[in-house]
Amino acid sequence: MPTTEFSTSLITDLYQLTMAAGYFTHRCNNQGSFELFVRRVPKNRNYLLTAGLAECLEYITSLKFSESDIEYLKSLTVFKNVGAEFFDYLRNFRFTGDVWAMPEGTLVFGNEPIIRVTAPLIEAQILETYLLSTINFQTLIATKAARIVRAAHQDGKKRSILEFGTRRAHGGVAGTYAARSAYLSGFTGTSNLAAGKRFGIPVYGTAAHAWTLAFGDELTAFKKLYEVFPDTSTLLIDTYDTLKGAENACKLGAGIKGVRIDSGNLAEQSFKVREILDKAGLNQTKIVVSGDLNEFSITELIKRGAPVDTLGVGTELATSRDLPALGGVYKLVERVKDDGTTQFTAKFSSEKITYPGIKQVFRHYGSNGEYLGDTLGLANESIPTNSRPLLVPVIKNGEITEYGKVSLESSRAYAAQELANLPKEYHSFSENILYPVLTSIALNELLEEVKAKLNQ
Amino acid sequence: MPTTEFSTSLITDLYQLTMAAGYFTHRCNNQGSFELFVRRVPKNRNYLLTAGLAECLEYITSLKFSESDIEYLKSLTVFKNVGAEFFDYLRNFRFTGDVWAMPEGTLVFGNEPIIRVTAPLIEAQILETYLLSTINFQTLIATKAARIVRAAHQDGKKRSILEFGTRRAHGGVAGTYAARSAYLSGFTGTSNLAAGKRFGIPVYGTAAHAWTLAFGDELTAFKKLYEVFPDTSTLLIDTYDTLKGAENACKLGAGIKGVRIDSGNLAEQSFKVREILDKAGLNQTKIVVSGDLNEFSITELIKRGAPVDTLGVGTELATSRDLPALGGVYKLVERVKDDGTTQFTAKFSSEKITYPGIKQVFRHYGSNGEYLGDTLGLANESIPTNSRPLLVPVIKNGEITEYGKVSLESSRAYAAQELANLPKEYHSFSENILYPVLTSIALNELLEEVKAKLNQ
Repeated sequence: MPTTEFSTSLITDLYQLTMAAGYFTHRCNNQGSFELFVRRVPKNRNYLLTAGLAECLEYITSLKFSESDIEYLKSLTVFKNVGAEFFDYLRNFRFTGDVWAMPEGTLVFGNEPIIRVTAPLIEAQILETYLLSTINFQTLIATKAARIVRAAHQDGKKRSILEFGTRRAHGGVAGTYAARSAYLSGFTGTSNLAAGKRFGIPVYGTAAHAWTLAFGDELTAFKKLYEVFPDTSTLLIDTYDTLKGAENACKLGAGIKGVRIDSGNLAEQSFKVREILDKAGLNQTKIVVSGDLNEFSITELIKRGAPVDTLGVGTELATSRDLPALGGVYKLVERVKDDGTTQFTAKFSSEKITYPGIKQVFRHYGSNGEYLGDTLGLANESIPTNSRPLLVPVIKNGEITEYGKVSLESSRAYAAQELANLPKEYHSFSENILYPVLTSIALNELLEEVKAKLNQ
Repeated sequence: MPTTEFSTSLITDLYQLTMAAGYFTHRCNNQGSFELFVRRVPKNRNYLLTAGLAECLEYITSLKFSESDIEYLKSLTVFKNVGAEFFDYLRNFRFTGDVWAMPEGTLVFGNEPIIRVTAPLIEAQILETYLLSTINFQTLIATKAARIVRAAHQDGKKRSILEFGTRRAHGGVAGTYAARSAYLSGFTGTSNLAAGKRFGIPVYGTAAHAWTLAFGDELTAFKKLYEVFPDTSTLLIDTYDTLKGAENACKLGAGIKGVRIDSGNLAEQSFKVREILDKAGLNQTKIVVSGDLNEFSITELIKRGAPVDTLGVGTELATSRDLPALGGVYKLVERVKDDGTTQFTAKFSSEKITYPGIKQVFRHYGSNGEYLGDTLGLANESIPTNSRPLLVPVIKNGEITEYGKVSLESSRAYAAQELANLPKEYHSFSENILYPVLTSIALNELLEEVKAKLNQ
């Protein structure tokens, strides 16, 4: 099957393996720590909502190199001077280190580590590409989804929001993880069955335009659908003419669960369709709308008072269309030297600072639970009052801990709480407001120390 | 392993399976034909370059439902009135129909079918979501890649272009297919090993900033890398200070294959680095640049005469950042009625016309081979002079034909020829120029006939 022929172990950049071979050859494999973070929240977002950790943990704990992977690597010219011992090392590879991470559904801001990996240098290095692509992508989608959910509930009505985007996602696997990220952020469900099966997400859907076209006559098509799915049918009424479609739906009588409008001016159509339904006594029939919906168009619909009960969201969500890439990075922050002391590493170019040392993020809250700001500190600093450390141990000696085994439902509840604790102003879709992230005195001192040493 | 636990059969929308159950229940399973197309070329593109067919053919010919897939479906409330026969049908499902398609690497324009599926209605319907997500995504990336290649070669110099985008792609699987699409469009290679192994694409890469940080001192790090990879080392020189990095590279003497600059003003830095290298007699050492490159920034580099030999392209390519979604659709165009006659299907809403009947695309060329325009006609029309029909049979009775078995290398050569035959004006990155797509008289007549019948 197409997507299953990949070895996830090779979904990585060649340089991870050449570096691994180099470290191995030079016996440079003391413990090192890498942190994965985003340098700054992109300018059309005020926060990011982390997602992808569950997949990362599966990846890390199942990572191994098959014989055919190793044969492939050996066939590459670049490895011609690399001894057989390295390939034996790969053959027996398993991750033995520790991982700390922010649970999925945590709000995250610039420079805050989302994942920290501590392991022999090779083991930690090899994970880079896969962790980045997983966290970058799923965090993008979860963040976009959180905005869309906020938009859909802004007037206090808990409208259902369904994820319909697989056909426009970056391939079917991306679509499946997009569905998961959307659910994490509060979507009601998805049309994607693989996501339903694998992650236990509620699935939705009944029939497309093709169904109506296949039966030719719309009323016949509706009746035929209703016969097979009497309790769950949502009728797609815009194949030919939305209002005639609504009238045809009414001919089926009460009990029609919903009608869906997938084209045209959704606000105008929904008013007219509501009127038609109500006149026919179908007051209980829900109106589902879809078609390039996002947080902005949903806000517009709600401002106009459009009688929409359920929102189907596809392309805009599954591709995070207005922000399709996130620039997360994975940087070495410290390593153990041969003499047993710690070498702290950092980068200082004007545009790109990397803070040295393993870190913790402390989130400060007020008496009502509302978040006031974060402090980026060293991992061993004591927890300030009215603060919560965000990174928790998720893998210990290569094994997933209890913290790493949270269910998607728990993560979803946690994400909702995180979003509820974020002061209102950060939820603006248009205004850019910077959440305060301070650095601790200890971290600043370490930074200066490393800088001084490098300039010696 | 994370990505391998999916059944590709369930990477689809629930409504494909509910419709299937409905068609099955109503014994509405005569042959139908669906066409997959993009309604119009998006406004920041003048053409699309098709990609994804190879994956689609694998998907179609290997599609089956496992026992656990079927158990999952049966567990869904929506199917509670659906008889056991339907699930037996799924258990024995295989695709038995025919598929015609444009070969990968074909230029495609608005309303032109990229894939046409003719099969019993259920078989054809079920493919929709997966085919769409595959073609939409890979076509996006191949198109973006073609623009980037055009930019990189605009002054006649055949610069190497490497794909580095997996870490920013929509997950690792998307990154792997992005690498393939980039290679199809003329990229030199990729850093993604899974793409290298699976598709036979040349792979590139040596070391990251972490390597330099791990050894602390840059010159030591360079020497250590060079010891293991004497023939292939490209030294990343911007960990601390690019110009000092270039000087450190020079200390290793001639034979250094390349240096890479990954930050700062690439044009300015490349001039200075070239000077340092040349002064040290390293005239043969190549300069690789990377960092948010796309067709626009590459054009800028070349206009300034920057001495760059190799371009590493990541985020912009792997996410098609300025056009992250393509709106391909999959529409029923005709079906066989119970009396054996053909019912042609179409949609006519003002914004969305779907042409009825199975179609062919004829591409017209001038005496020099340059493309003049296309005609969208019916599948059984005779080929106009100086024209080439673009759709070829790739699956016959469920089996992949010779046309469906072309190698990636052949597709790559074909894509290059397609792009070379497209008149220069359509290669503009900024100007919007509409390639002429006409409809044949026979198609127009059929459209009017269907419209008249619907309005009766």
